[in-house]
Amino acid sequence: MSFNTFGRALRLTTWGESHGPAIGCVLDGCPPGLAISEEEIRAELARRATGRSRHTSQRREKDEVKILSGMFEGRTTGTPISLFIENTDARSRDYSEISRQYRPGHADFTYDAKYGTRDYRGGGRSSARETTMRVAAGAIARKWLKQEYDIGIQGWLAQLGPIRTDEQRDWDVVDDSPFFVPSTDIVPELEGFMDALRKSGDSVGARVNCRAWNVPAGLGEPVYGKLDADLATAMMSINATKGVEIGAGFDSVAQKGTEHRDEMTPEGFLGNQAGGILGGISSGQEVVVSVAFKPTSSLRIPCRSIDVDGQPIEVVTKGRHDPCVGIRATPIVEAMMALTLMDHVLRHRGQIGT
Amino acid sequence: MSFNTFGRALRLTTWGESHGPAIGCVLDGCPPGLAISEEEIRAELARRATGRSRHTSQRREKDEVKILSGMFEGRTTGTPISLFIENTDARSRDYSEISRQYRPGHADFTYDAKYGTRDYRGGGRSSARETTMRVAAGAIARKWLKQEYDIGIQGWLAQLGPIRTDEQRDWDVVDDSPFFVPSTDIVPELEGFMDALRKSGDSVGARVNCRAWNVPAGLGEPVYGKLDADLATAMMSINATKGVEIGAGFDSVAQKGTEHRDEMTPEGFLGNQAGGILGGISSGQEVVVSVAFKPTSSLRIPCRSIDVDGQPIEVVTKGRHDPCVGIRATPIVEAMMALTLMDHVLRHRGQIGT
Amino acid sequence: MSFNTFGRALRLTTWGESHGPAIGCVLDGCPPGLAISEEEIRAELARRATGRSRHTSQRREKDEVKILSGMFEGRTTGTPISLFIENTDARSRDYSEISRQYRPGHADFTYDAKYGTRDYRGGGRSSARETTMRVAAGAIARKWLKQEYDIGIQGWLAQLGPIRTDEQRDWDVVDDSPFFVPSTDIVPELEGFMDALRKSGDSVGARVNCRAWNVPAGLGEPVYGKLDADLATAMMSINATKGVEIGAGFDSVAQKGTEHRDEMTPEGFLGNQAGGILGGISSGQEVVVSVAFKPTSSLRIPCRSIDVDGQPIEVVTKGRHDPCVGIRATPIVEAMMALTLMDHVLRHRGQIGT
Amino acid sequence: MSFNTFGRALRLTTWGESHGPAIGCVLDGCPPGLAISEEEIRAELARRATGRSRHTSQRREKDEVKILSGMFEGRTTGTPISLFIENTDARSRDYSEISRQYRPGHADFTYDAKYGTRDYRGGGRSSARETTMRVAAGAIARKWLKQEYDIGIQGWLAQLGPIRTDEQRDWDVVDDSPFFVPSTDIVPELEGFMDALRKSGDSVGARVNCRAWNVPAGLGEPVYGKLDADLATAMMSINATKGVEIGAGFDSVAQKGTEHRDEMTPEGFLGNQAGGILGGISSGQEVVVSVAFKPTSSLRIPCRSIDVDGQPIEVVTKGRHDPCVGIRATPIVEAMMALTLMDHVLRHRGQIGT
Repeated sequence: MSFNTFGRALRLTTWGESHGPAIGCVLDGCPPGLAISEEEIRAELARRATGRSRHTSQRREKDEVKILSGMFEGRTTGTPISLFIENTDARSRDYSEISRQYRPGHADFTYDAKYGTRDYRGGGRSSARETTMRVAAGAIARKWLKQEYDIGIQGWLAQLGPIRTDEQRDWDVVDDSPFFVPSTDIVPELEGFMDALRKSGDSVGARVNCRAWNVPAGLGEPVYGKLDADLATAMMSINATKGVEIGAGFDSVAQKGTEHRDEMTPEGFLGNQAGGILGGISSGQEVVVSVAFKPTSSLRIPCRSIDVDGQPIEVVTKGRHDPCVGIRATPIVEAMMALTLMDHVLRHRGQIGT
Repeated sequence: MSFNTFGRALRLTTWGESHGPAIGCVLDGCPPGLAISEEEIRAELARRATGRSRHTSQRREKDEVKILSGMFEGRTTGTPISLFIENTDARSRDYSEISRQYRPGHADFTYDAKYGTRDYRGGGRSSARETTMRVAAGAIARKWLKQEYDIGIQGWLAQLGPIRTDEQRDWDVVDDSPFFVPSTDIVPELEGFMDALRKSGDSVGARVNCRAWNVPAGLGEPVYGKLDADLATAMMSINATKGVEIGAGFDSVAQKGTEHRDEMTPEGFLGNQAGGILGGISSGQEVVVSVAFKPTSSLRIPCRSIDVDGQPIEVVTKGRHDPCVGIRATPIVEAMMALTLMDHVLRHRGQIGT
Repeated sequence: MSFNTFGRALRLTTWGESHGPAIGCVLDGCPPGLAISEEEIRAELARRATGRSRHTSQRREKDEVKILSGMFEGRTTGTPISLFIENTDARSRDYSEISRQYRPGHADFTYDAKYGTRDYRGGGRSSARETTMRVAAGAIARKWLKQEYDIGIQGWLAQLGPIRTDEQRDWDVVDDSPFFVPSTDIVPELEGFMDALRKSGDSVGARVNCRAWNVPAGLGEPVYGKLDADLATAMMSINATKGVEIGAGFDSVAQKGTEHRDEMTPEGFLGNQAGGILGGISSGQEVVVSVAFKPTSSLRIPCRSIDVDGQPIEVVTKGRHDPCVGIRATPIVEAMMALTLMDHVLRHRGQIGT
Repeated sequence: MSFNTFGRALRLTTWGESHGPAIGCVLDGCPPGLAISEEEIRAELARRATGRSRHTSQRREKDEVKILSGMFEGRTTGTPISLFIENTDARSRDYSEISRQYRPGHADFTYDAKYGTRDYRGGGRSSARETTMRVAAGAIARKWLKQEYDIGIQGWLAQLGPIRTDEQRDWDVVDDSPFFVPSTDIVPELEGFMDALRKSGDSVGARVNCRAWNVPAGLGEPVYGKLDADLATAMMSINATKGVEIGAGFDSVAQKGTEHRDEMTPEGFLGNQAGGILGGISSGQEVVVSVAFKPTSSLRIPCRSIDVDGQPIEVVTKGRHDPCVGIRATPIVEAMMALTLMDHVLRHRGQIGT
């Protein structure tokens, strides 16, 4: 079985391989009447784009997204929205070597185990290129949430390898930051770190946080449709994710109950250890999620592996790769937050009625 | 909308409130031919049972699970399996106070926000009692996985509040341990800690880990049906969960790529930072997940809150509550691992065919 | 795979075999606040009950339905509603013969082909007893639709074997009719027909129609969630159904376009060939569906068949069987109409919002 | 809510409007290893194509379908298959009149009721053009079923308006027939009928039958995933469908049980009133379905209607329209049969395992 659809009332289905002719998605379930343009979606894609700074990889896709359906006279009609991007920068090269190698940390081996075959050009379906369509569809969800409920979503890089990056939190600078950090002061340190990292040929992981405000209380369904459970699957479905936290997350392990439980007053909650979700349902506080990204496995530093015949080989990855995939994961995390919240808003409205 | 079903090819639907007449579940999709008895399911429930040690709460349910359908002559028939437990220990008491209070850290406020009503007796649907049915259904999945694929599943308490509990890993002692820890040496320390904690009236969080071995390579679906994404939603759907990790989890944030990528040799992988999953698909290594549980919010230490009219109140929780819910979460985590793996085995077999 | 769930926003999962200890269902997705009692559900079940007249079979279940969850102080809470009926009239008998026989027209052979096993007592899961839970859950949907939208649902027997039964349409008499026919005049003819049929040992088919009024325009989703497509699967899922029509149905084959298209005026539509659905979406007219039920296959007239070893046998069915299953299918058809409409109302409300 | 996905293990999601830039679909769940080319899909599309004979409408799309993903070196990879067709024959015209009119028998009124807006160019999403993608995806399912199980599928026109067209059944001539009829003798009569019909400006309905052979026994899931229930929704989801029958269908209403029940012998069944499905599960006999299509509502004969303001108008449809949409529905019915059967094969294999 193959499964490439996310969501229940708002459903995103993505398709396409890194080096195929195009990638795309179908977003089904968006209510009618939302005004949105290709330009607005492209603006969101530009935030994720490779080549954004010298710290991310050099593949340069224009990401000229086209809206092929579901719109009429500039507004959504309620029918499925098809988004489409041609792959223009899929450089033709010799894949004979890579076709027989299993790169450690990649999905080469597991795709072969599952399917008995794989499209080895550029990672095929397991390429991070798939996340482009999440950001494109997420742009629609973001705009809808903003317009209908004034919900805002803000992601940021909270840790880059060993460096905590969000002790200072100046939200206004995140979007202009080459690292999506809420601080300008820390940028020189990060640049130095990345330059050294690149020189070493190694890579690091990252932590990306995301918060959403003005989320109405009542989103989420008890037990198996919990808002936090749906956020967990949303985030874990992003390439390279190894962990997801809500609110205090793993810190809650060592917390006392008196520390963790957010007391309430007529003026509101006195803390947000819960991350805006209690019993799987939003409380009206900020919804806060944190996501761990592993370090890129594609390195020019050689490593041991096997080929498709099980023979030992040495793998050296060439080509364009980010030394920290987490840097440009911020817009992807935001997109998954937006898609999850919009799905839950639609699900909740069915129940409450008019 | 309400959503109380987990899984796709194997679907678990649970129902019932803590203080209603009964709780139960329907497990749909189990293949025919599995021999399983009520006794085997009860044995699994006994592991989770309240009252197991003096460190867990004193509610004593017999959990006399009954199989009401889907079995014939001791074997599953392929039709839906209905499991049923009467609530016998739902003590009758005066709920007039609790009916008007929002307990911090609980789902009282959010259920009211969502539904405009709630069954306040014992937490209603948001009670941890719901997890009983996960363990019951999980017992069926565990047996099937063991029999068909020799898959084994082992959970354990890895951290209790501030105390790391699994530095020594003697798997044989876990099931006899009052704390589900893989060590007998650490038990006195844990007992001392829990006694002091109980005296203080406070509570702590916990970390529960779980590993599954003999999982065939190839389980999981690219992109939105990833095995790790489905494990994430499975674990985050358990009451009190605040975080989920696969393999290295949040440690991978500070790792170098050379550290994290598990090299391969003809003899196998040289590490398991990946936690047995690459690109969302099992690699044949041990599948390893780690789950953060928050500290119990029900404390006899008073705290500030509001009532249903928004007026300030002081809340003191009476009654039977675990000072660390994580202690008996181990069988629940195992059950969700079993249900997720069995679901994915069935999904995968559809594709590979005979 | 096994699949026992109907609906998307309102989901009915049924379980149980004819001769097991109990049957039941879980209705998930019902909004909070609906007042409904066990008595109201039982009243609906009584309409379907066996033993209603001398023309239906003699099995006498009391159908003492119990509501085990999802209710609090007489109202739904929004959490899953568990309905439960003990099987009290599952007479113990010798099944050794039937266990080895494939009865023509029954699911014996196909269950064995699918599962390699079957619960042969009373038809097991394929027994019409399963439909009891549809009627029970349908009673909840009916009341909700009535209360929230003043939607009414009326089924009737339109044809009994060769006899057209609804040329006269006096809706007030249907519910008191032993045949669910909208006419008292035709009852003697039907009684004579049934008496002769019973004497002959044979059986006949039936046509049941159902209409729903006050259905708001706009229900149904283009393409694969069409209201008529969902009604078709709803009706075809009832035991013994062989055909489903919407509006003019198969008569539309021989119609001219000028005949079929329902002209519109400011006062409304001038006809209802469409059966209240255009392009898969309700038009505000009466939704009209017609369902064909095959004749009972269980006859005391012998027939040729094979046993589980493929050897030729003669089958004679003993026991209690309706010579026309269609007679008491009317409440089942109504229930499936109610469940489908309520599901679509909830789905539609998610989109239109507040 | 909008829902544009069909199937469970094999999922087809279609998108696109009649007069938008393109239409397409995503077929998710096809196992790896199937060799299929764009040419093979185009051949199937050519069977459905408009302009096939003078009896179908004159819109001439080339239907140059492209496969954009899910294939590698000529074979499916197990990842989602994206099919894409540019709309080249969407003539630009003045829509100001049609934008304000509700055409009787069309979805104009109901789309507005549901969404408050509609893409009125050529019917938008409700156009029969959507069915192109069913045929394209169905071509993949057909080839897979043929190759893996030697399953064959044959549809035919069984009735054209008042004329029964399949009394003679010469299967070899169907595919070359301008009417998809299994007889050459009847073609002159049909041509005469259609010529007169066109002259009159009116339209008629049609009945399309479809049979599938070599379908293994055991497909279908009890109760709500019945094979016949899934075929019913598959067929009813096709534009203009008003009825669906399995096997004897509505004829079974007047049948005796002794007539209907298909007796069994060691050599096989002695009849196929059941249409190859018993208890919702395939029996190994031919699966037989019959579908009623209503007459085209777009006529040059004027009719009464209302405009978007509720004012009375007269509607006359101009442009290219088939006087009998049923004629080219045959490949669509076959496609839905193929998609349903393949979905059920994959679902069933999950259960039976290796």
